[in-house]
Amino acid sequence: MIDVGIVGGTGYTGIELIRLILQHPQARLKMLTSRTEAGVKIADMFPSLRGILDLEFSPLDIEQLKTCHVVFFATPHGVAMKHAKALTEAGVKIIDLAADFRLQNLDSFKKWYGIEHECPELLKQSVYGLSELNRDKIKTAQIVGNPGCYPTTVQLGLAPLLKSTEQLIDFKNIIIDAKSGVSGAGRKASMSMIYTENTDNFKAYGVAGHRHHPEIIEALEHISGQERVFDDLTFVPHLVPMIRGMLSTIYVSLTDAGQVANLQKIFEDFYQNETFVDVMPANSHPETRSVRGANYLRIALHQPTAQRLVIIVTQDNLVKGAAGQAIQNMNIMFGLQESFGLTSIGLLP
Amino acid sequence: MIDVGIVGGTGYTGIELIRLILQHPQARLKMLTSRTEAGVKIADMFPSLRGILDLEFSPLDIEQLKTCHVVFFATPHGVAMKHAKALTEAGVKIIDLAADFRLQNLDSFKKWYGIEHECPELLKQSVYGLSELNRDKIKTAQIVGNPGCYPTTVQLGLAPLLKSTEQLIDFKNIIIDAKSGVSGAGRKASMSMIYTENTDNFKAYGVAGHRHHPEIIEALEHISGQERVFDDLTFVPHLVPMIRGMLSTIYVSLTDAGQVANLQKIFEDFYQNETFVDVMPANSHPETRSVRGANYLRIALHQPTAQRLVIIVTQDNLVKGAAGQAIQNMNIMFGLQESFGLTSIGLLP
Amino acid sequence: MIDVGIVGGTGYTGIELIRLILQHPQARLKMLTSRTEAGVKIADMFPSLRGILDLEFSPLDIEQLKTCHVVFFATPHGVAMKHAKALTEAGVKIIDLAADFRLQNLDSFKKWYGIEHECPELLKQSVYGLSELNRDKIKTAQIVGNPGCYPTTVQLGLAPLLKSTEQLIDFKNIIIDAKSGVSGAGRKASMSMIYTENTDNFKAYGVAGHRHHPEIIEALEHISGQERVFDDLTFVPHLVPMIRGMLSTIYVSLTDAGQVANLQKIFEDFYQNETFVDVMPANSHPETRSVRGANYLRIALHQPTAQRLVIIVTQDNLVKGAAGQAIQNMNIMFGLQESFGLTSIGLLP
Amino acid sequence: MIDVGIVGGTGYTGIELIRLILQHPQARLKMLTSRTEAGVKIADMFPSLRGILDLEFSPLDIEQLKTCHVVFFATPHGVAMKHAKALTEAGVKIIDLAADFRLQNLDSFKKWYGIEHECPELLKQSVYGLSELNRDKIKTAQIVGNPGCYPTTVQLGLAPLLKSTEQLIDFKNIIIDAKSGVSGAGRKASMSMIYTENTDNFKAYGVAGHRHHPEIIEALEHISGQERVFDDLTFVPHLVPMIRGMLSTIYVSLTDAGQVANLQKIFEDFYQNETFVDVMPANSHPETRSVRGANYLRIALHQPTAQRLVIIVTQDNLVKGAAGQAIQNMNIMFGLQESFGLTSIGLLP
Repeated sequence: MIDVGIVGGTGYTGIELIRLILQHPQARLKMLTSRTEAGVKIADMFPSLRGILDLEFSPLDIEQLKTCHVVFFATPHGVAMKHAKALTEAGVKIIDLAADFRLQNLDSFKKWYGIEHECPELLKQSVYGLSELNRDKIKTAQIVGNPGCYPTTVQLGLAPLLKSTEQLIDFKNIIIDAKSGVSGAGRKASMSMIYTENTDNFKAYGVAGHRHHPEIIEALEHISGQERVFDDLTFVPHLVPMIRGMLSTIYVSLTDAGQVANLQKIFEDFYQNETFVDVMPANSHPETRSVRGANYLRIALHQPTAQRLVIIVTQDNLVKGAAGQAIQNMNIMFGLQESFGLTSIGLLP
Repeated sequence: MIDVGIVGGTGYTGIELIRLILQHPQARLKMLTSRTEAGVKIADMFPSLRGILDLEFSPLDIEQLKTCHVVFFATPHGVAMKHAKALTEAGVKIIDLAADFRLQNLDSFKKWYGIEHECPELLKQSVYGLSELNRDKIKTAQIVGNPGCYPTTVQLGLAPLLKSTEQLIDFKNIIIDAKSGVSGAGRKASMSMIYTENTDNFKAYGVAGHRHHPEIIEALEHISGQERVFDDLTFVPHLVPMIRGMLSTIYVSLTDAGQVANLQKIFEDFYQNETFVDVMPANSHPETRSVRGANYLRIALHQPTAQRLVIIVTQDNLVKGAAGQAIQNMNIMFGLQESFGLTSIGLLP
Repeated sequence: MIDVGIVGGTGYTGIELIRLILQHPQARLKMLTSRTEAGVKIADMFPSLRGILDLEFSPLDIEQLKTCHVVFFATPHGVAMKHAKALTEAGVKIIDLAADFRLQNLDSFKKWYGIEHECPELLKQSVYGLSELNRDKIKTAQIVGNPGCYPTTVQLGLAPLLKSTEQLIDFKNIIIDAKSGVSGAGRKASMSMIYTENTDNFKAYGVAGHRHHPEIIEALEHISGQERVFDDLTFVPHLVPMIRGMLSTIYVSLTDAGQVANLQKIFEDFYQNETFVDVMPANSHPETRSVRGANYLRIALHQPTAQRLVIIVTQDNLVKGAAGQAIQNMNIMFGLQESFGLTSIGLLP
Repeated sequence: MIDVGIVGGTGYTGIELIRLILQHPQARLKMLTSRTEAGVKIADMFPSLRGILDLEFSPLDIEQLKTCHVVFFATPHGVAMKHAKALTEAGVKIIDLAADFRLQNLDSFKKWYGIEHECPELLKQSVYGLSELNRDKIKTAQIVGNPGCYPTTVQLGLAPLLKSTEQLIDFKNIIIDAKSGVSGAGRKASMSMIYTENTDNFKAYGVAGHRHHPEIIEALEHISGQERVFDDLTFVPHLVPMIRGMLSTIYVSLTDAGQVANLQKIFEDFYQNETFVDVMPANSHPETRSVRGANYLRIALHQPTAQRLVIIVTQDNLVKGAAGQAIQNMNIMFGLQESFGLTSIGLLP
């Protein structure tokens, strides 16, 4: 049994981690910390847990956390890096669902998150937790930076093209039109998030710059092994009036080689052994609800004109886009079957 | 392993049965029939099952169904009663999620469903499948009539009062103001069910008479052992713009005895050994989302004035109100642990 | 032209007042105050007004407000009563959309709103602005307390019965099961109001006591001319996942006289000259969307058993339940046609 | 007073036309035909009209329609072209909200709509009713083909660039990622449109080919005066779980000239005299709810990299995207003030 600690369990990634761990055959939730809710029963905050979980939020106590095998940080950025040293020195593995261990570029981190990184040396040793692409490194990682939700869709949607030995697409002309349900913004009381401001409404946001943009660039450079070629990538996120779900529509320009390649087969081959990546038949229309509550990510290819490829990628932003991938990474780190705790079927309708 | 057949698997109770059976440790889905979709892959209709279920819809073939241990009818009313004889004679157990085995009163069945009952003798032997109240009879039943969603909330909300040795409430003055998500109406193409006619909208419906009304009356008579006392019961269902979820607000008048009784304790004691019935602390406000996708039913008591008791009951209409309770009944019929296949935690948010 | 000032224009009743006044043929918006947003263009906060309204929020300046003919308070309770004296002495009429001039009982006000009333003498002179029932007094009122949204549905739903010369119903056994869209809670950043906590969810709230409860009691006493008979009235509000709309399902017990009366005709006669009250045919199911954005209130009667009458009442909580009725009251106070500014047709779909 | 007839008034564009005409100072609704509902009171089908409109649906009678000044066709494609000759010969003006008079290319019409055009000679004389771009021709038109909803956003979003004397963008590399509320699919009973299949869900649709695609191509060729340059345009529509509202995110590549041009000023100048086109400040995020129920279309420009321009365009698909623009065209055809009947302010929240 793996003893699990969660730091900052009052947000949506926190409750989602709880839900998944409670269904995990080889892990148990040992403690859940909350700065503001210590002493409160978790089931009083999340009534879906009544009758299932009889635990209270604890204060954040590093000594206590050291008794866990793994600690998830479901906190805002800046928290995990404060405690990473103490925990890893005690042999505890860390999976950070915030951004502290996503960007290797320290300047980029400072520019986008507004703070200095506090443990650059640990950052260097940490592994970026895109499970399917970095599995080997994750196996032995002490610290995993769990990817952002948007970047997960983009990387898995483009990886077969970037990893191809042939140059199938023009790296300099990639457009990502992404859409997310409201839970992507977390659980916080702000005017822009209230029901009446979001229902029956649709809008783009953060066009001038979203924190997942530099993460996408760095990740694509890493996957392709090429630098500076993605600088003109355009990423426009939109907010959809739904609770969960994310769908990225990715537009790429095919090279001559790309236009004659069997792209569908390239994708199917690339993901043939992956449990959680579903390459749908060509011209499919994946729906976000097909992954609601589940760890699957679905991809469909469309080629409306000879030179244009449209890649549609969908996932549940809270599962494959956050807590689910974090559990998947934990399973990899501890040598467990990768699907443990992740067998929930999407809730439909 | 229990071999399960489902007749009529293209509706929402059908897909929900599939989801639960696929997560059941001792049951496996052997066949799923559909008049209209035979030969179609189930995962093509319900993409949430892609990568999980590789089965096709079959035509309805009684000989094939006889090879199952249990057959669920997730059909409109009038289908199960046509096939009940052949299947039970072959030793197959039946759980009907429609109304064929809910009403013992044949006249009432004809009046509300517009057809004659085709196997009154089997109806007499069948058991009404309100798991918590009829557990003993369900254990040995060959045919179970799975309760309607509204009647489940009403029975579990009133049973502790009706079963009390003291007369705690006025049986003649019960008002049920019930609210259901849209999935309660099933999966069918009708103008009144389209998105644009239901979103951002609320209404009562069926005030003049809803088919669950006679079921509620008959069930309450059965529970209380008294006839004709519930004839003035008022039941008004409403439609809520949400997918899943049901909440009944039940208004009763307390007798003198009821006004001095410890009603909260009566409810807690009554359900103390029940896994799926949660008596919340007095004055709680149960939310439908606390049971989304889960088999729990939550009850809260309020006593705004000395003589008035308000009982709030919530459940997921597709789980405890339909497919979940059906699985619970299957578990009881086959002597399995009652929670097998029903450990999903409510999806929140 | 009537010069209109609005104090506290950043909430939903504020923006709704603006929308209606801009469509009013005899009124013009002269100033809109906001403590927090002074200097900001109103259309920057409410982009629906871009190209239509070129005004900025002003600071709250009583001398400036004195230049208006009428001032609406779209503020929390406790604000209007601070400024009522100065404004009325300057001849300005006041319509308060909060609670300062709703309850004549000072103890009740203190108990439910937690503060002492600051101008009891003005309160005594003020008129409760249920337009249809108090029209004559509103005509000459200097101060109007605009009714709460729930109380509006209850009063108009019960008035024909309470005003009848015969005793048609049992006043002591009235149950109001009320449902409101989320905008009823106003525009404020709180966790309980965020999108992800309210969507696909339904719950009761405030069962132990809602501020509209004493308002309902006082109003029904006033309409019926009888005191203390409504003390056992039960009022349970619920929250519906929709933006606008309110529906109250009112359950009453008919007396012998009530059981033989032509109740439908009594309602139709009572409201025959009212523009904004629509008595639908018996057994209708009014929908909230039929009044979305419009000042109509619709009523339908059902009599499921001999002694039970169910009265269903619907309105847009922000229009007839707030800003629309406030404009209707303004029209009455200034001798204008009552429907001026209120001719918007419900937005459907 | 202009006498208006509507053919096919039971859909959403029909009810929207009614709503707008009833608020129009110089037009009156004379008749509304429906094949299926003749004799039914319109307010019985659309209860928002109770107390406002006391008219019944009529059967489609051409002689009767000839007594109107203008007839709107709010029908599926193929109806208007059957009756256009008789009506225009009688001097009646026609505004078709379906596709019969949108495409000048007869082959394209046949390919996308599956039928032969029945009056090619009238098609040639008809005018494409994009009000802002074709105002002069609309003034004298006998028949107006009202634009599709998506094409309206694309044309108004690109026109300032296409009409520029300088080549500001690469015409061959235009991507339109469009999103629509569900009402865009009309009011019909089909499984894919029911509430439970669309709520809390997001998907792309029609990627392989949408009927608005050829309309967009033909329109852009017409605006730019260039043929075949838009053949590689990519258009991907998506379905948003909301009732009304449409938002197109348009991605274009700037030429060297485009990169140094003041694009914001070019757009502002282009639309400076337009009532219904709102060029927002650069980097704005227009929201669909800012135009809910209103005839406005809002545009915002973003330039995330030197060579990339993102144009965000939003409108209410039923108003500026359908019925509102149709009324605007009627006003132009009859020499009325263009905003008559179109002064409704967006309903927010």
